[in-house]
Amino acid sequence: MASLIAPKQFSPLEDAENIKRACQGWGTDERAIIAILGHRDATQRKLIRLAFEEIYQQDLIKQLKSELSGDFERAICNWTLDPADRDAVLANVALQKMIPDYRVIIEIACIRSPEELLAVRRAYRSRNKRSLEEDVASQTTGYVRKLLVALVSAYRYDEDECDMQMAHSEADMLREDIHEKAFNHDELIRIVSTRSKAQLKATFNSYRDIYGRSITKGLSGDLADDYLAALRTTIRCIRDPKKYYAKVARNAINAVGTDEDALSRVIITRAEKDLRDIEELYRKRNSITLYDAISRDTSGDYKAFLLVLLGRDEV
Amino acid sequence: MASLIAPKQFSPLEDAENIKRACQGWGTDERAIIAILGHRDATQRKLIRLAFEEIYQQDLIKQLKSELSGDFERAICNWTLDPADRDAVLANVALQKMIPDYRVIIEIACIRSPEELLAVRRAYRSRNKRSLEEDVASQTTGYVRKLLVALVSAYRYDEDECDMQMAHSEADMLREDIHEKAFNHDELIRIVSTRSKAQLKATFNSYRDIYGRSITKGLSGDLADDYLAALRTTIRCIRDPKKYYAKVARNAINAVGTDEDALSRVIITRAEKDLRDIEELYRKRNSITLYDAISRDTSGDYKAFLLVLLGRDEV
Repeated sequence: MASLIAPKQFSPLEDAENIKRACQGWGTDERAIIAILGHRDATQRKLIRLAFEEIYQQDLIKQLKSELSGDFERAICNWTLDPADRDAVLANVALQKMIPDYRVIIEIACIRSPEELLAVRRAYRSRNKRSLEEDVASQTTGYVRKLLVALVSAYRYDEDECDMQMAHSEADMLREDIHEKAFNHDELIRIVSTRSKAQLKATFNSYRDIYGRSITKGLSGDLADDYLAALRTTIRCIRDPKKYYAKVARNAINAVGTDEDALSRVIITRAEKDLRDIEELYRKRNSITLYDAISRDTSGDYKAFLLVLLGRDEV
Repeated sequence: MASLIAPKQFSPLEDAENIKRACQGWGTDERAIIAILGHRDATQRKLIRLAFEEIYQQDLIKQLKSELSGDFERAICNWTLDPADRDAVLANVALQKMIPDYRVIIEIACIRSPEELLAVRRAYRSRNKRSLEEDVASQTTGYVRKLLVALVSAYRYDEDECDMQMAHSEADMLREDIHEKAFNHDELIRIVSTRSKAQLKATFNSYRDIYGRSITKGLSGDLADDYLAALRTTIRCIRDPKKYYAKVARNAINAVGTDEDALSRVIITRAEKDLRDIEELYRKRNSITLYDAISRDTSGDYKAFLLVLLGRDEV
């Protein structure tokens, strides 16, 4: 369930004018901007961008960038982008870090629907003049590269049916690849990057039934190994995206100084999807609500904006 | 340049009725069917299928399958399909052979535009309830699998610009991978499966400039090696699709007993694209026109149909 609260009735032209007004004169009225954009869904935000462009011959995102700063600026600009375009930006930023943030790439590849992933690849290509898989390949090496390139290139079958016999036999193959520790994971990469998500969930369940422990436990060898970490993230993203995001939020909040990029990513990419469920999982696991944790850990306009996206209006 | 001759004016309803009439009574009037479908472009054929379905509550392809047989049936049914759907069928047939026909997969992956390839993957998935890359992976092994899965999963950047410095440095990397013969071709597969076609052409040219021979020559080791053969096909499809198709037609015609599947594939998939240019290349290389070669090597309705698609109406 989504957490975003957006009114059915709205006027893109009025919104655009009110945002422009908030940007003019002495200082910027951040709270006015939050009160508008924090209550509009993806389609509404797109119409506001179009109206803004039409009236002022100016890109709304550029305007926001020039008026705002820091975590708040990044969060509200990413929020205002089309979802596919936003993922393309997140992927690009993640790849350009000194140590690429594989998690972002894996989330996009494994949690978005196959059609959404294609839209991200299209957006990435038109923004960067290179394909997503091309940049992933040039920023990574070895098994991490094999896994990530295969994941971002996937266009999986997308229905719920699955083949139980294949689930058993592929659980065996996974076991073999993992147990050997010979690190010839070609079969494993083929399976996790080509099978449908429903099929993979059946395979992971079958693995647990046969071997009595989860497949991520089987992969827990060396924590510092990038490839094993990427593989665990992949499996978690496919198995239970909500639980995965609750964990990302928890790690972000518990990090020394808070990992704002990761926290923003969870809130912004899930507010229109399933943030309400993620909150519920968060509360169960951490004995504190995500709302309270964010209230305690962040401040100012950034905090106000995240809380609005959580659907608790106290601006 | 296309070879297909299709009138601007046409009536889908009349065409559907005339095809139905040709299928009724004693025997089928194949020539009437050729005279209609052999002169309609993809959009027109689609409208005829819709009209046929509307009038007779029957799928036109099924009707044709039940009336016709042999090479002619396969050719006209494939022709009548939407291009993306047809490629999905060709890929599926190629993968189900005892020895999968890699060429078909490589052609589709490397000669179609990135958007066309996505459409094929979508059609494949909805026909077969599995993704194309999933089936490619399960029908192949080793380096052939690595190469083909990467090729069918690609969504390349699609503009003409290219980076000459990268072309030089990647030509060096290709040389290294090829020369080592250690068969650790990971870099090579990454390059041919992720870079844009314009960039790859520059890289292949650069290879020839630096090393004085074409890259396919460098790969000519063991002719019987499936992987090297697949790699050469890949490079040829990217470097010069028309020349590649002229060669496929030549091999098909020169094969003992003629390889009708390959011949039909060239004519049917290129008649609306560049078959006129392929004919020209064919004539230059073989001192006989493709028209004459086909006239000599085939017969009956099958022959009549291919010649109509070549744009020489003598039915």
